[in-house]
Amino acid sequence: MSERNAILEANQRYSQSFGRKGELPLPPARRIAILTCMDARLDPAAYAGLQEGDAHVIRNAGGRASDDAIRSLVISYKLLGTQEWYVIHHTNCGMEFFTDDTMRSLLASSLETAVLGADGFEDVGKGPGSKAGAFVNWLTISDLRQSVIDDVRRIREHPLVPARIPIHGFIYEVETGKLLEIEEASIIGAAREGAGSD
Amino acid sequence: MSERNAILEANQRYSQSFGRKGELPLPPARRIAILTCMDARLDPAAYAGLQEGDAHVIRNAGGRASDDAIRSLVISYKLLGTQEWYVIHHTNCGMEFFTDDTMRSLLASSLETAVLGADGFEDVGKGPGSKAGAFVNWLTISDLRQSVIDDVRRIREHPLVPARIPIHGFIYEVETGKLLEIEEASIIGAAREGAGSD
Amino acid sequence: MSERNAILEANQRYSQSFGRKGELPLPPARRIAILTCMDARLDPAAYAGLQEGDAHVIRNAGGRASDDAIRSLVISYKLLGTQEWYVIHHTNCGMEFFTDDTMRSLLASSLETAVLGADGFEDVGKGPGSKAGAFVNWLTISDLRQSVIDDVRRIREHPLVPARIPIHGFIYEVETGKLLEIEEASIIGAAREGAGSD
Amino acid sequence: MSERNAILEANQRYSQSFGRKGELPLPPARRIAILTCMDARLDPAAYAGLQEGDAHVIRNAGGRASDDAIRSLVISYKLLGTQEWYVIHHTNCGMEFFTDDTMRSLLASSLETAVLGADGFEDVGKGPGSKAGAFVNWLTISDLRQSVIDDVRRIREHPLVPARIPIHGFIYEVETGKLLEIEEASIIGAAREGAGSD
Repeated sequence: MSERNAILEANQRYSQSFGRKGELPLPPARRIAILTCMDARLDPAAYAGLQEGDAHVIRNAGGRASDDAIRSLVISYKLLGTQEWYVIHHTNCGMEFFTDDTMRSLLASSLETAVLGADGFEDVGKGPGSKAGAFVNWLTISDLRQSVIDDVRRIREHPLVPARIPIHGFIYEVETGKLLEIEEASIIGAAREGAGSD
Repeated sequence: MSERNAILEANQRYSQSFGRKGELPLPPARRIAILTCMDARLDPAAYAGLQEGDAHVIRNAGGRASDDAIRSLVISYKLLGTQEWYVIHHTNCGMEFFTDDTMRSLLASSLETAVLGADGFEDVGKGPGSKAGAFVNWLTISDLRQSVIDDVRRIREHPLVPARIPIHGFIYEVETGKLLEIEEASIIGAAREGAGSD
Repeated sequence: MSERNAILEANQRYSQSFGRKGELPLPPARRIAILTCMDARLDPAAYAGLQEGDAHVIRNAGGRASDDAIRSLVISYKLLGTQEWYVIHHTNCGMEFFTDDTMRSLLASSLETAVLGADGFEDVGKGPGSKAGAFVNWLTISDLRQSVIDDVRRIREHPLVPARIPIHGFIYEVETGKLLEIEEASIIGAAREGAGSD
Repeated sequence: MSERNAILEANQRYSQSFGRKGELPLPPARRIAILTCMDARLDPAAYAGLQEGDAHVIRNAGGRASDDAIRSLVISYKLLGTQEWYVIHHTNCGMEFFTDDTMRSLLASSLETAVLGADGFEDVGKGPGSKAGAFVNWLTISDLRQSVIDDVRRIREHPLVPARIPIHGFIYEVETGKLLEIEEASIIGAAREGAGSD
């Protein structure tokens, strides 16, 4: 069975026992938003106990506070009323295994999937590649704990983010399924006092 | 109980019955990536039948093919081997309810959450706001079906995306839980023939 | 004579009387940077009295404080020591004559040059166009004075810009060649007191 | 005399002998656009023989084909009719002297101007700095000739750029004032045959 058909079959089962989820309102019931990685091993609904309707979930490569993630967060509070945000990176993240230079060079060589060997990623494709990768900031991670701190700080300092929203920083352990708070990040991300009406 | 504590309690239960998920490999087992909206009512693992380890899931406001989503997709195939992508927007999406001008004006007025009345969003906050919203393309949606087609096309035409990856376009119905294929999008997103080695 | 040859001929004359300009150092002698529009009628060296070696000149459509302009300004002070910046928009700017919607629609219709008629820009090209324009914030201008103020404020509030750099806001009159200061912008852009060592 | 006053005095002289330049039309008379570096030693009007009204001039750090430069170029042809583009980088460019890592580390240390010593840029400021630099692609240059080729190619391949516009690649020698064509770039940037009506 093709992946497309497998998805459609699973979706048919899901919709058949959909219950009253069609009545859920647009704004998140628990007023929270989570920014986390696209990694296949992460299921934020499962690891954080979210039901349909509870929370906005934003995901990209690394769970990084990119401009696009901040666009989404601003829509999340400004139009849909979320009041508390979580930045959740994770152990064994693919973003730790390469640099911008690696990625640019791999893409310039070919667009085929690279192979991860003992010496890092190697290209095995037969061109052509594209130089367009040189214009992308791949948002790689060199220190996992630091990336959580940096991303919480970037959101905290962003001119469109109100001071009253607390931003928590966590690491999810793919080995154990556990969430570990990064206190330094959560302190930086704390709502500022007297910020109730900013 | 605070939201933070509720999340940590749910996470404790999750990690206690984590089983052997700690052994899952980094590359997605089913070699697929899904780009969908951050909307709280969507649980892509549930509506598409995904287990931990199966698929990359990228989410932002609208499920749009932003530069950041394309960054994530390129990492997804180039380093982690996904071979098939799904763009899944949804009915009753918040991105249909405002324009860039609305958002800029609301943010310039205050950073507080706006109220959705009969005449659209109205600001009730007491400044200060920020003009920084004028520099953001909010990626709003004026025609849902067209937004799926446009996003599939944007990914298809991107110089870093290989021609051999099929890109499917869908709408998820929040009223019924059903996935509806947008054939015009999937035709545009089809892998190009003879593209096996590009 | 082709444009290319005309440029090369002019360049030959320029290089023949190049004098000792080859000895100019890399950092700008007058330690200033100017951000202004790409408009053909503007010659910032002429209108602001700049010699080769004096000042960084950054130009884009509108003279806007885009992310790329801020990238350039940060390099300008951090590596090359500029200490004072000027944002200079101008009257009769092309950026006032269209909206994002106009541009998206024109580009979707064809990539050919549009014609400016009594009812605004009209497309006369024979497709195909591209929907990729929907993902661009064209940074149009609806109020010229306000755009100077907004851009000075955006630079002033940017986390990478030090508080000690004054940012002046001006409008250049293409009808008279005169620079007119926008005082509200320059007040917002003033160096912050006690910011000498930030 | 302050820099601001020196500029205003020079501008007064310029406007006093402004002649009939106030009658110049908005579209560039010679229908060309030049993308070049913000470097203080470059005066594109002088080195390429441009009069007020002749050509669009886009400048940023490096003269790079950033998204913002492409935004400007698309406006240049789509609304204002330019038909031929020049990408002009230059020798001894500051963008060759650092990497993204250098810049991120310097900015994280302090926002003060760094000092260029024998071992490269060193920070002498007394913090605080900002981590926000980690989210910027600084578009540094590691090979000057290659950067011209890459930028011409990026523009050529961009979905919003019509095939009929030729894009020429040049290096400007700051030591001699001479323009040197990079033939490989100009070949990549050549208008595509039969592209008259794309």
